[in-house]
Amino acid sequence: MSNPMHNININNNNNNGSQLANMELLTLDNPVFCCYLFWATVLVAKMLLMSLLTALQRFRYKVFPNEEDLFFKNIEVQFDDPHVERVRRAHRNDMENILPYFIMALIYVCTNPNPLVACNLFRVAAIARIVHTLVYAVYPVPQPSRILAFATMMLITFYMAAVVALRTLRFI
Amino acid sequence: MSNPMHNININNNNNNGSQLANMELLTLDNPVFCCYLFWATVLVAKMLLMSLLTALQRFRYKVFPNEEDLFFKNIEVQFDDPHVERVRRAHRNDMENILPYFIMALIYVCTNPNPLVACNLFRVAAIARIVHTLVYAVYPVPQPSRILAFATMMLITFYMAAVVALRTLRFI
Amino acid sequence: MSNPMHNININNNNNNGSQLANMELLTLDNPVFCCYLFWATVLVAKMLLMSLLTALQRFRYKVFPNEEDLFFKNIEVQFDDPHVERVRRAHRNDMENILPYFIMALIYVCTNPNPLVACNLFRVAAIARIVHTLVYAVYPVPQPSRILAFATMMLITFYMAAVVALRTLRFI
Repeated sequence: MSNPMHNININNNNNNGSQLANMELLTLDNPVFCCYLFWATVLVAKMLLMSLLTALQRFRYKVFPNEEDLFFKNIEVQFDDPHVERVRRAHRNDMENILPYFIMALIYVCTNPNPLVACNLFRVAAIARIVHTLVYAVYPVPQPSRILAFATMMLITFYMAAVVALRTLRFI
Repeated sequence: MSNPMHNININNNNNNGSQLANMELLTLDNPVFCCYLFWATVLVAKMLLMSLLTALQRFRYKVFPNEEDLFFKNIEVQFDDPHVERVRRAHRNDMENILPYFIMALIYVCTNPNPLVACNLFRVAAIARIVHTLVYAVYPVPQPSRILAFATMMLITFYMAAVVALRTLRFI
Repeated sequence: MSNPMHNININNNNNNGSQLANMELLTLDNPVFCCYLFWATVLVAKMLLMSLLTALQRFRYKVFPNEEDLFFKNIEVQFDDPHVERVRRAHRNDMENILPYFIMALIYVCTNPNPLVACNLFRVAAIARIVHTLVYAVYPVPQPSRILAFATMMLITFYMAAVVALRTLRFI
Protein backbone atom coordinates (compact mmCIF):
# COMPACT_ATOMS: atom_id res chain seq x y z
CA MET A 1 0.00 0.00 0.00
CA SER A 2 3.00 2.25 0.56
CA ASN A 3 4.16 2.02 -3.07
CA PRO A 4 4.38 5.65 -4.20
CA MET A 5 4.03 4.65 -7.86
CA HIS A 6 0.67 3.10 -7.18
CA ASN A 7 -0.65 6.15 -5.41
CA ILE A 8 0.33 8.29 -8.34
CA ASN A 9 -1.59 6.01 -10.67
CA ILE A 10 -4.68 6.11 -8.50
CA ASN A 11 -4.52 9.88 -8.52
CA ASN A 12 -4.23 9.86 -12.29
CA ASN A 13 -7.26 7.70 -12.46
CA ASN A 14 -9.29 9.94 -10.22
CA ASN A 15 -8.30 12.98 -12.22
CA ASN A 16 -8.96 11.85 -15.74
CA GLY A 17 -9.80 8.13 -15.83
CA SER A 18 -6.45 7.62 -17.56
CA GLN A 19 -5.72 4.55 -19.59
CA LEU A 20 -2.51 4.04 -17.62
CA ALA A 21 -4.25 2.97 -14.42
CA ASN A 22 -6.42 0.46 -16.24
CA MET A 23 -3.46 -1.19 -17.88
CA GLU A 24 -1.88 -1.96 -14.55
CA LEU A 25 -4.84 -3.59 -12.84
CA LEU A 26 -3.71 -7.18 -13.43
CA THR A 27 -0.14 -6.72 -12.16
CA LEU A 28 1.62 -7.09 -8.84
CA ASP A 29 1.73 -3.28 -8.67
CA ASN A 30 -1.99 -3.29 -7.87
CA PRO A 31 -2.57 -4.13 -4.17
CA VAL A 32 -6.16 -5.18 -4.89
CA PHE A 33 -4.92 -7.76 -7.40
CA CYS A 34 -2.28 -8.99 -4.92
CA CYS A 35 -4.97 -9.41 -2.27
CA TYR A 36 -7.06 -11.38 -4.79
CA LEU A 37 -4.02 -13.53 -5.62
CA PHE A 38 -3.37 -14.37 -1.99
CA TRP A 39 -6.93 -15.34 -1.08
CA ALA A 40 -7.58 -17.16 -4.35
CA THR A 41 -4.45 -19.19 -3.61
CA VAL A 42 -5.76 -20.02 -0.14
CA LEU A 43 -9.04 -21.22 -1.64
CA VAL A 44 -7.31 -23.29 -4.34
CA ALA A 45 -5.24 -25.02 -1.64
CA LYS A 46 -8.39 -25.57 0.42
CA MET A 47 -10.16 -27.19 -2.53
CA LEU A 48 -7.25 -29.53 -3.24
CA LEU A 49 -7.25 -30.58 0.40
CA MET A 50 -10.85 -31.74 -0.11
CA SER A 51 -9.54 -34.37 -2.56
CA LEU A 52 -7.09 -35.56 0.07
CA LEU A 53 -9.82 -35.58 2.73
CA THR A 54 -11.99 -37.73 0.45
CA ALA A 55 -9.08 -40.13 -0.06
CA LEU A 56 -8.50 -40.22 3.70
CA GLN A 57 -12.15 -41.14 4.31
CA ARG A 58 -11.99 -43.81 1.59
CA PHE A 59 -9.00 -45.50 3.25
CA ARG A 60 -10.42 -45.07 6.75
CA TYR A 61 -13.75 -46.71 5.91
CA LYS A 62 -12.34 -48.91 3.10
CA VAL A 63 -14.85 -47.63 0.53
CA PHE A 64 -13.53 -47.58 -3.03
CA PRO A 65 -15.53 -47.02 -6.22
CA ASN A 66 -13.19 -48.75 -8.73
CA GLU A 67 -12.03 -52.35 -9.05
CA GLU A 68 -8.40 -51.24 -9.41
CA ASP A 69 -8.58 -49.28 -6.13
CA LEU A 70 -9.23 -52.29 -3.85
CA PHE A 71 -6.09 -51.90 -1.76
CA PHE A 72 -7.33 -54.29 0.94
CA LYS A 73 -8.19 -57.96 0.69
CA ASN A 74 -11.76 -59.22 0.90
CA ILE A 75 -13.47 -55.94 0.04
CA GLU A 76 -15.61 -55.03 -2.93
CA VAL A 77 -16.40 -51.79 -4.75
CA GLN A 78 -18.86 -49.82 -2.68
CA PHE A 79 -20.75 -46.54 -3.04
CA ASP A 80 -22.93 -44.33 -0.89
CA ASP A 81 -20.92 -44.54 2.32
CA PRO A 82 -22.25 -41.61 4.41
CA HIS A 83 -18.80 -40.48 5.63
CA VAL A 84 -17.34 -40.38 2.14
CA GLU A 85 -20.44 -38.87 0.52
CA ARG A 86 -20.55 -36.02 3.04
CA VAL A 87 -17.04 -34.92 2.05
CA ARG A 88 -17.91 -35.32 -1.63
CA ARG A 89 -21.01 -33.15 -1.23
CA ALA A 90 -18.91 -30.48 0.49
CA HIS A 91 -16.37 -30.72 -2.33
CA ARG A 92 -19.07 -30.42 -4.99
CA ASN A 93 -20.49 -27.40 -3.18
CA ASP A 94 -17.00 -25.86 -3.32
CA MET A 95 -16.88 -26.37 -7.07
CA GLU A 96 -20.35 -24.90 -7.51
CA ASN A 97 -19.50 -21.75 -5.58
CA ILE A 98 -15.75 -21.14 -5.44
CA LEU A 99 -14.93 -21.77 -9.10
CA PRO A 100 -17.44 -19.18 -10.44
CA TYR A 101 -16.24 -16.84 -7.67
CA PHE A 102 -12.64 -17.07 -8.97
CA ILE A 103 -13.75 -15.77 -12.38
CA MET A 104 -16.18 -13.23 -10.91
CA ALA A 105 -13.60 -11.75 -8.52
CA LEU A 106 -10.93 -11.58 -11.25
CA ILE A 107 -13.40 -9.74 -13.50
CA TYR A 108 -14.30 -7.47 -10.59
CA VAL A 109 -10.63 -6.50 -10.15
CA CYS A 110 -10.62 -5.39 -13.81
CA THR A 111 -13.28 -2.77 -13.04
CA ASN A 112 -10.84 -0.98 -10.70
CA PRO A 113 -12.99 -1.22 -7.52
CA ASN A 114 -12.47 0.68 -4.28
CA PRO A 115 -9.41 -1.06 -2.73
CA LEU A 116 -10.79 -1.15 0.81
CA VAL A 117 -14.11 -2.67 -0.24
CA ALA A 118 -12.56 -5.17 -2.64
CA CYS A 119 -9.87 -6.46 -0.27
CA ASN A 120 -12.34 -6.95 2.55
CA LEU A 121 -14.73 -8.80 0.25
CA PHE A 122 -11.91 -11.18 -0.74
CA ARG A 123 -11.03 -11.78 2.91
CA VAL A 124 -14.58 -12.36 4.10
CA ALA A 125 -15.44 -14.63 1.16
CA ALA A 126 -12.38 -16.85 1.68
CA ILE A 127 -12.86 -17.15 5.43
CA ALA A 128 -16.58 -17.91 4.96
CA ARG A 129 -15.75 -20.85 2.70
CA ILE A 130 -13.15 -22.19 5.14
CA VAL A 131 -15.83 -22.06 7.84
CA HIS A 132 -18.24 -23.79 5.42
CA THR A 133 -15.81 -26.68 5.01
CA LEU A 134 -15.21 -26.98 8.74
CA VAL A 135 -18.91 -27.12 9.66
CA TYR A 136 -19.83 -29.36 6.70
CA ALA A 137 -17.05 -31.86 6.09
CA VAL A 138 -14.77 -31.82 9.13
CA TYR A 139 -17.07 -31.48 12.14
CA PRO A 140 -20.81 -31.25 11.32
CA VAL A 141 -22.61 -28.70 13.47
CA PRO A 142 -26.32 -27.76 13.53
CA GLN A 143 -27.71 -25.32 11.04
CA PRO A 144 -27.83 -22.40 10.24
CA SER A 145 -24.02 -22.24 10.51
CA ARG A 146 -23.50 -23.84 7.10
CA ILE A 147 -26.25 -21.82 5.43
CA LEU A 148 -24.72 -18.57 6.72
CA ALA A 149 -21.24 -19.51 5.51
CA PHE A 150 -22.70 -20.53 2.14
CA ALA A 151 -24.77 -17.36 1.80
CA THR A 152 -21.82 -15.10 2.61
CA MET A 153 -19.78 -15.97 -0.48
CA MET A 154 -22.89 -16.18 -2.65
CA LEU A 155 -23.98 -12.66 -1.71
CA ILE A 156 -20.46 -11.34 -2.29
CA THR A 157 -20.38 -12.96 -5.74
CA PHE A 158 -23.80 -11.48 -6.59
CA TYR A 159 -22.59 -8.04 -5.43
CA MET A 160 -19.52 -8.30 -7.69
CA ALA A 161 -21.74 -9.47 -10.55
CA ALA A 162 -24.01 -6.45 -10.10
CA VAL A 163 -21.03 -4.05 -10.09
CA VAL A 164 -19.52 -5.57 -13.25
CA ALA A 165 -22.85 -5.86 -15.09
CA LEU A 166 -23.64 -2.19 -14.45
CA ARG A 167 -20.17 -1.14 -15.65
CA THR A 168 -20.36 -3.20 -18.86
CA LEU A 169 -24.08 -3.02 -19.62
CA ARG A 170 -23.62 -0.97 -22.79
CA PHE A 171 -21.57 -3.82 -24.34
CA ILE A 172 -24.51 -6.25 -24.12
CA MET B 1 -17.30 0.84 -29.90
CA SER B 2 -17.07 4.55 -30.59
CA ASN B 3 -13.94 5.01 -28.49
CA PRO B 4 -11.48 6.72 -30.83
CA MET B 5 -8.49 5.53 -28.78
CA HIS B 6 -9.45 1.93 -29.35
CA ASN B 7 -9.73 2.37 -33.10
CA ILE B 8 -6.29 3.89 -33.20
CA ASN B 9 -4.91 0.92 -31.33
CA ILE B 10 -6.53 -1.55 -33.70
CA ASN B 11 -5.01 0.32 -36.62
CA ASN B 12 -1.63 0.21 -34.97
CA ASN B 13 -2.00 -3.49 -34.54
CA ASN B 14 -2.93 -4.04 -38.14
CA ASN B 15 -0.02 -1.96 -39.32
CA ASN B 16 2.80 -3.39 -37.31
CA GLY B 17 1.47 -5.85 -34.69
CA SER B 18 2.45 -3.29 -32.08
CA GLN B 19 3.01 -4.26 -28.48
CA LEU B 20 0.74 -1.42 -27.38
CA ALA B 21 -2.46 -3.05 -28.58
CA ASN B 22 -1.63 -6.35 -26.89
CA MET B 23 -1.06 -4.70 -23.54
CA GLU B 24 -4.55 -3.24 -23.49
CA LEU B 25 -6.50 -6.39 -24.25
CA LEU B 26 -7.48 -7.16 -20.65
CA THR B 27 -8.74 -3.67 -19.78
CA LEU B 28 -12.07 -1.87 -19.93
CA ASP B 29 -10.69 0.04 -22.94
CA ASN B 30 -11.13 -3.11 -25.03
CA PRO B 31 -14.79 -3.51 -26.07
CA VAL B 32 -14.28 -7.25 -26.70
CA PHE B 33 -13.12 -7.70 -23.11
CA CYS B 34 -16.08 -5.65 -21.83
CA CYS B 35 -18.46 -7.84 -23.82
CA TYR B 36 -16.78 -10.92 -22.30
CA LEU B 37 -17.13 -9.38 -18.81
CA PHE B 38 -20.83 -8.74 -19.26
CA TRP B 39 -21.77 -12.18 -20.56
CA ALA B 40 -19.47 -14.02 -18.17
CA THR B 41 -21.20 -12.14 -15.36
CA VAL B 42 -24.59 -13.22 -16.68
CA LEU B 43 -23.44 -16.85 -16.72
CA VAL B 44 -21.94 -16.66 -13.21
CA ALA B 45 -25.26 -15.30 -11.90
CA LYS B 46 -27.13 -18.03 -13.79
CA MET B 47 -24.93 -20.73 -12.22
CA LEU B 48 -25.46 -19.36 -8.71
CA LEU B 49 -29.21 -19.39 -9.30
CA MET B 50 -28.92 -23.15 -9.90
CA SER B 51 -27.84 -23.54 -6.25
CA LEU B 52 -30.92 -21.62 -5.16
CA LEU B 53 -33.13 -23.67 -7.50
CA THR B 54 -31.74 -26.86 -5.95
CA ALA B 55 -32.46 -25.51 -2.47
CA LEU B 56 -35.98 -24.56 -3.59
CA GLN B 57 -36.63 -28.10 -4.85
CA ARG B 58 -35.24 -29.55 -1.61
CA PHE B 59 -37.66 -27.52 0.50
CA ARG B 60 -40.56 -28.10 -1.89
CA TYR B 61 -40.19 -31.89 -1.86
CA LYS B 62 -38.62 -32.06 1.63
CA VAL B 63 -35.58 -33.97 0.42
CA PHE B 64 -32.41 -33.28 2.42
CA PRO B 65 -29.12 -35.18 2.25
CA ASN B 66 -27.72 -34.28 5.71
CA GLU B 67 -28.96 -34.98 9.23
CA GLU B 68 -28.49 -31.34 10.22
CA ASP B 69 -30.67 -30.15 7.32
CA LEU B 70 -33.90 -31.83 8.50
CA PHE B 71 -35.91 -28.63 8.89
CA PHE B 72 -39.23 -30.49 9.11
CA LYS B 73 -40.43 -32.99 11.68
CA ASN B 74 -40.82 -36.67 10.88
CA ILE B 75 -38.57 -36.74 7.81
CA GLU B 76 -35.33 -38.58 7.22
CA VAL B 77 -32.31 -38.00 5.02
CA GLN B 78 -33.21 -38.93 1.48
CA PHE B 79 -31.41 -39.09 -1.86
CA ASP B 80 -32.32 -39.70 -5.49
CA ASP B 81 -35.48 -37.62 -5.59
CA PRO B 82 -36.09 -37.13 -9.35
CA HIS B 83 -37.03 -33.43 -9.06
CA VAL B 84 -33.92 -32.56 -7.08
CA GLU B 85 -31.60 -34.78 -9.13
CA ARG B 86 -32.75 -33.20 -12.41
CA VAL B 87 -31.68 -29.76 -11.20
CA ARG B 88 -28.41 -31.18 -9.88
CA ARG B 89 -27.66 -32.82 -13.24
CA ALA B 90 -28.32 -29.50 -14.98
CA HIS B 91 -26.05 -27.77 -12.48
CA ARG B 92 -23.29 -30.34 -12.98
CA ASN B 93 -23.61 -29.93 -16.74
CA ASP B 94 -23.14 -26.18 -16.23
CA MET B 95 -19.93 -26.80 -14.31
CA GLU B 96 -18.67 -29.22 -16.96
CA ASN B 97 -19.23 -26.75 -19.78
CA ILE B 98 -19.41 -23.15 -18.52
CA LEU B 99 -16.38 -23.21 -16.21
CA PRO B 100 -13.94 -24.38 -18.93
CA TYR B 101 -15.62 -21.87 -21.28
CA PHE B 102 -14.80 -19.01 -18.87
CA ILE B 103 -11.08 -19.81 -19.11
CA MET B 104 -11.19 -20.56 -22.83
CA ALA B 105 -13.00 -17.30 -23.67
CA LEU B 106 -10.64 -15.25 -21.49
CA ILE B 107 -7.68 -16.84 -23.24
CA TYR B 108 -9.35 -16.18 -26.59
CA VAL B 109 -9.65 -12.46 -25.76
CA CYS B 110 -5.87 -12.42 -25.21
CA THR B 111 -5.31 -13.41 -28.86
CA ASN B 112 -6.94 -10.14 -30.00
CA PRO B 113 -9.74 -11.74 -32.06
CA ASN B 114 -11.98 -9.95 -34.57
CA PRO B 115 -14.32 -7.88 -32.33
CA LEU B 116 -17.48 -8.66 -34.31
CA VAL B 117 -16.87 -12.43 -34.29
CA ALA B 118 -15.81 -12.54 -30.65
CA CYS B 119 -18.71 -10.49 -29.26
CA ASN B 120 -21.28 -12.51 -31.17
CA LEU B 121 -19.73 -15.78 -29.96
CA PHE B 122 -20.01 -14.54 -26.34
CA ARG B 123 -23.65 -13.57 -26.87
CA VAL B 124 -24.69 -16.80 -28.58
CA ALA B 125 -22.85 -19.00 -26.05
CA ALA B 126 -24.45 -17.29 -23.05
CA ILE B 127 -27.96 -17.36 -24.51
CA ALA B 128 -27.54 -21.02 -25.51
CA ARG B 129 -26.72 -21.96 -21.91
CA ILE B 130 -29.68 -19.99 -20.57
CA VAL B 131 -31.90 -21.93 -23.01
CA HIS B 132 -30.19 -25.15 -21.86
CA THR B 133 -31.16 -24.43 -18.25
CA LEU B 134 -34.74 -23.56 -19.19
CA VAL B 135 -35.34 -26.73 -21.19
CA TYR B 136 -33.48 -28.98 -18.73
CA ALA B 137 -34.14 -27.79 -15.19
CA VAL B 138 -37.06 -25.38 -15.33
CA TYR B 139 -39.50 -26.83 -17.84
CA PRO B 140 -38.37 -30.09 -19.50
CA VAL B 141 -39.17 -30.21 -23.21
CA PRO B 142 -38.55 -33.01 -25.73
CA GLN B 143 -35.16 -33.42 -27.35
CA PRO B 144 -33.27 -32.27 -29.38
CA SER B 145 -33.74 -28.82 -27.80
CA ARG B 146 -31.32 -29.56 -24.98
CA ILE B 147 -28.77 -31.24 -27.24
CA LEU B 148 -28.75 -28.23 -29.56
CA ALA B 149 -28.29 -25.77 -26.68
CA PHE B 150 -25.53 -27.96 -25.26
CA ALA B 151 -23.77 -28.34 -28.62
CA THR B 152 -23.84 -24.59 -29.31
CA MET B 153 -21.54 -23.63 -26.44
CA MET B 154 -19.40 -26.73 -26.93
CA LEU B 155 -18.75 -25.91 -30.59
CA ILE B 156 -17.98 -22.29 -29.71
CA THR B 157 -15.49 -23.44 -27.06
CA PHE B 158 -13.85 -25.84 -29.53
CA TYR B 159 -13.62 -23.03 -32.11
CA MET B 160 -11.91 -20.76 -29.56
CA ALA B 161 -9.58 -23.62 -28.59
CA ALA B 162 -8.61 -24.11 -32.24
CA VAL B 163 -7.90 -20.40 -32.69
CA VAL B 164 -5.75 -20.20 -29.55
CA ALA B 165 -3.93 -23.48 -30.21
CA LEU B 166 -2.96 -22.37 -33.72
CA ARG B 167 -1.73 -19.00 -32.41
CA THR B 168 0.39 -20.54 -29.64
CA LEU B 169 1.44 -23.82 -31.28
CA ARG B 170 5.13 -22.86 -31.43
CA PHE B 171 5.24 -22.60 -27.61
CA ILE B 172 4.28 -26.29 -27.19
CA MET C 1 11.65 -17.32 -27.43
CA SER C 2 13.76 -15.45 -29.98
CA ASN C 3 11.78 -12.23 -29.60
CA PRO C 4 14.45 -9.59 -28.85
CA MET C 5 11.90 -7.25 -27.23
CA HIS C 6 11.05 -9.83 -24.63
CA ASN C 7 14.66 -10.41 -23.69
CA ILE C 8 15.13 -6.71 -23.18
CA ASN C 9 12.16 -6.65 -20.83
CA ILE C 10 13.48 -9.56 -18.80
CA ASN C 11 16.77 -7.75 -18.42
CA ASN C 12 14.98 -4.61 -17.31
CA ASN C 13 13.13 -6.66 -14.74
CA ASN C 14 16.30 -8.18 -13.36
CA ASN C 15 17.98 -4.80 -13.13
CA ASN C 16 15.34 -2.78 -11.37
CA GLY C 17 12.08 -4.73 -11.10
CA SER C 18 10.61 -2.34 -13.62
CA GLN C 19 6.89 -1.86 -13.93
CA LEU C 20 7.17 -2.35 -17.69
CA ALA C 21 7.85 -6.07 -17.50
CA ASN C 22 4.94 -6.67 -15.15
CA MET C 23 2.50 -4.97 -17.43
CA GLU C 24 3.32 -7.34 -20.26
CA LEU C 25 2.93 -10.62 -18.41
CA LEU C 26 -0.58 -11.38 -19.66
CA THR C 27 0.13 -10.72 -23.35
CA LEU C 28 1.26 -12.81 -26.29
CA ASP C 29 4.66 -11.10 -25.96
CA ASN C 30 5.32 -13.24 -22.89
CA PRO C 31 6.40 -16.78 -23.93
CA VAL C 32 5.43 -18.16 -20.50
CA PHE C 33 1.89 -16.88 -20.98
CA CYS C 34 1.78 -18.34 -24.50
CA CYS C 35 2.90 -21.71 -23.15
CA TYR C 36 0.14 -21.49 -20.52
CA LEU C 37 -2.38 -20.62 -23.24
CA PHE C 38 -1.42 -23.61 -25.36
CA TRP C 39 -1.54 -26.21 -22.60
CA ALA C 40 -4.66 -24.75 -20.98
CA THR C 41 -6.33 -25.01 -24.37
CA VAL C 42 -5.29 -28.66 -24.63
CA LEU C 43 -6.80 -29.36 -21.20
CA VAL C 44 -10.04 -27.50 -22.01
CA ALA C 45 -10.42 -29.60 -25.16
CA LYS C 46 -9.66 -32.75 -23.17
CA MET C 47 -12.35 -31.89 -20.61
CA LEU C 48 -14.96 -31.26 -23.30
CA LEU C 49 -14.14 -34.62 -24.84
CA MET C 50 -15.11 -36.21 -21.51
CA SER C 51 -18.68 -34.97 -22.11
CA LEU C 52 -18.67 -36.61 -25.51
CA LEU C 53 -17.18 -39.81 -24.05
CA THR C 54 -19.99 -39.89 -21.48
CA ALA C 55 -22.57 -39.43 -24.23
CA LEU C 56 -20.90 -42.20 -26.24
CA GLN C 57 -21.11 -44.59 -23.27
CA ARG C 58 -24.76 -43.63 -22.71
CA PHE C 59 -25.68 -44.52 -26.30
CA ARG C 60 -23.52 -47.65 -26.31
CA TYR C 61 -25.09 -49.09 -23.16
CA LYS C 62 -28.47 -47.33 -23.63
CA VAL C 63 -28.37 -45.73 -20.19
CA PHE C 64 -30.16 -42.37 -19.99
CA PRO C 65 -31.04 -40.40 -16.85
CA ASN C 66 -33.92 -38.30 -18.24
CA GLU C 67 -37.32 -39.27 -19.66
CA GLU C 68 -36.81 -37.03 -22.69
CA ASP C 69 -33.49 -38.76 -23.53
CA LEU C 70 -34.97 -42.21 -24.21
CA PHE C 71 -33.91 -42.40 -27.85
CA PHE C 72 -34.60 -46.14 -28.06
CA LYS C 73 -37.89 -47.99 -27.65
CA ASN C 74 -38.61 -50.18 -24.65
CA ILE C 75 -36.00 -48.66 -22.33
CA GLU C 76 -36.45 -46.77 -19.10
CA VAL C 77 -34.44 -44.14 -17.24
CA GLN C 78 -31.50 -45.85 -15.56
CA PHE C 79 -28.66 -44.78 -13.29
CA ASP C 80 -25.53 -46.34 -11.83
CA ASP C 81 -24.34 -48.15 -14.94
CA PRO C 82 -20.68 -48.93 -14.15
CA HIS C 83 -19.36 -47.99 -17.63
CA VAL C 84 -21.07 -44.61 -17.59
CA GLU C 85 -20.29 -43.89 -13.95
CA ARG C 86 -16.57 -44.58 -14.45
CA VAL C 87 -16.36 -41.88 -17.13
CA ARG C 88 -18.40 -39.51 -14.95
CA ARG C 89 -16.06 -40.06 -12.00
CA ALA C 90 -13.08 -39.32 -14.24
CA HIS C 91 -14.84 -36.19 -15.49
CA ARG C 92 -15.64 -35.05 -11.96
CA ASN C 93 -12.03 -35.63 -10.97
CA ASP C 94 -11.02 -33.40 -13.90
CA MET C 95 -13.28 -30.63 -12.62
CA GLU C 96 -11.92 -31.00 -9.08
CA ASN C 97 -8.31 -30.69 -10.20
CA ILE C 98 -8.00 -29.02 -13.60
CA LEU C 99 -10.37 -26.10 -13.01
CA PRO C 100 -8.55 -24.85 -9.86
CA TYR C 101 -5.27 -25.46 -11.73
CA PHE C 102 -6.38 -23.09 -14.53
CA ILE C 103 -6.78 -20.24 -12.04
CA MET C 104 -3.68 -21.18 -10.06
CA ALA C 105 -1.45 -21.34 -13.15
CA LEU C 106 -2.81 -18.04 -14.49
CA ILE C 107 -2.08 -16.40 -11.14
CA TYR C 108 1.37 -17.99 -11.14
CA VAL C 109 2.14 -16.41 -14.54
CA CYS C 110 1.35 -13.01 -12.98
CA THR C 111 4.23 -13.46 -10.52
CA ASN C 112 6.73 -13.50 -13.42
CA PRO C 113 8.19 -16.97 -12.73
CA ASN C 114 11.35 -18.42 -14.22
CA PRO C 115 10.32 -19.22 -17.84
CA LEU C 116 12.05 -22.60 -17.98
CA VAL C 117 10.49 -23.84 -14.71
CA ALA C 118 7.04 -22.48 -15.53
CA CYS C 119 6.82 -23.87 -19.08
CA ASN C 120 7.95 -27.31 -17.99
CA LEU C 121 5.42 -27.33 -15.14
CA PHE C 122 2.64 -26.53 -17.64
CA ARG C 123 3.79 -29.33 -19.95
CA VAL C 124 4.14 -31.96 -17.24
CA ALA C 125 0.81 -31.06 -15.60
CA ALA C 126 -1.12 -31.27 -18.88
CA ILE C 127 0.46 -34.55 -19.94
CA ALA C 128 -0.14 -36.03 -16.47
CA ARG C 129 -3.86 -35.29 -16.73
CA ILE C 130 -4.06 -36.79 -20.22
CA VAL C 131 -2.44 -39.95 -18.82
CA HIS C 132 -4.92 -39.82 -15.90
CA THR C 133 -7.85 -39.86 -18.34
CA LEU C 134 -6.37 -42.70 -20.37
CA VAL C 135 -5.75 -44.98 -17.38
CA TYR C 136 -9.07 -44.07 -15.67
CA ALA C 137 -11.76 -43.62 -18.30
CA VAL C 138 -10.43 -45.08 -21.55
CA TYR C 139 -8.53 -48.22 -20.58
CA PRO C 140 -8.41 -48.97 -16.83
CA VAL C 141 -5.00 -50.21 -15.69
CA PRO C 142 -3.88 -51.30 -12.21
CA GLN C 143 -2.82 -48.75 -9.64
CA PRO C 144 -0.64 -46.83 -8.84
CA SER C 145 -0.67 -45.44 -12.39
CA ARG C 146 -3.74 -43.28 -11.75
CA ILE C 147 -2.55 -42.11 -8.33
CA LEU C 148 0.78 -41.01 -9.82
CA ALA C 149 -0.90 -39.08 -12.64
CA PHE C 150 -3.30 -37.51 -10.14
CA ALA C 151 -0.52 -36.58 -7.70
CA THR C 152 1.62 -34.97 -10.41
CA MET C 153 -0.80 -32.15 -11.18
CA MET C 154 -1.77 -31.77 -7.54
CA LEU C 155 1.85 -31.30 -6.43
CA ILE C 156 2.45 -28.82 -9.26
CA THR C 157 -0.63 -26.84 -8.20
CA PHE C 158 0.54 -26.84 -4.57
CA TYR C 159 4.00 -25.66 -5.67
CA MET C 160 2.45 -22.77 -7.62
CA ALA C 161 0.22 -21.95 -4.64
CA ALA C 162 3.27 -21.80 -2.36
CA VAL C 163 5.13 -19.49 -4.76
CA VAL C 164 2.17 -17.12 -5.12
CA ALA C 165 1.31 -17.13 -1.42
CA LEU C 166 4.89 -16.22 -0.46
CA ARG C 167 4.96 -13.39 -3.02
CA THR C 168 1.63 -11.90 -1.88
CA LEU C 169 1.72 -12.72 1.84
CA ARG C 170 1.95 -9.07 2.91
CA PHE C 171 -1.44 -8.37 1.28
CA ILE C 172 -3.22 -10.86 3.56
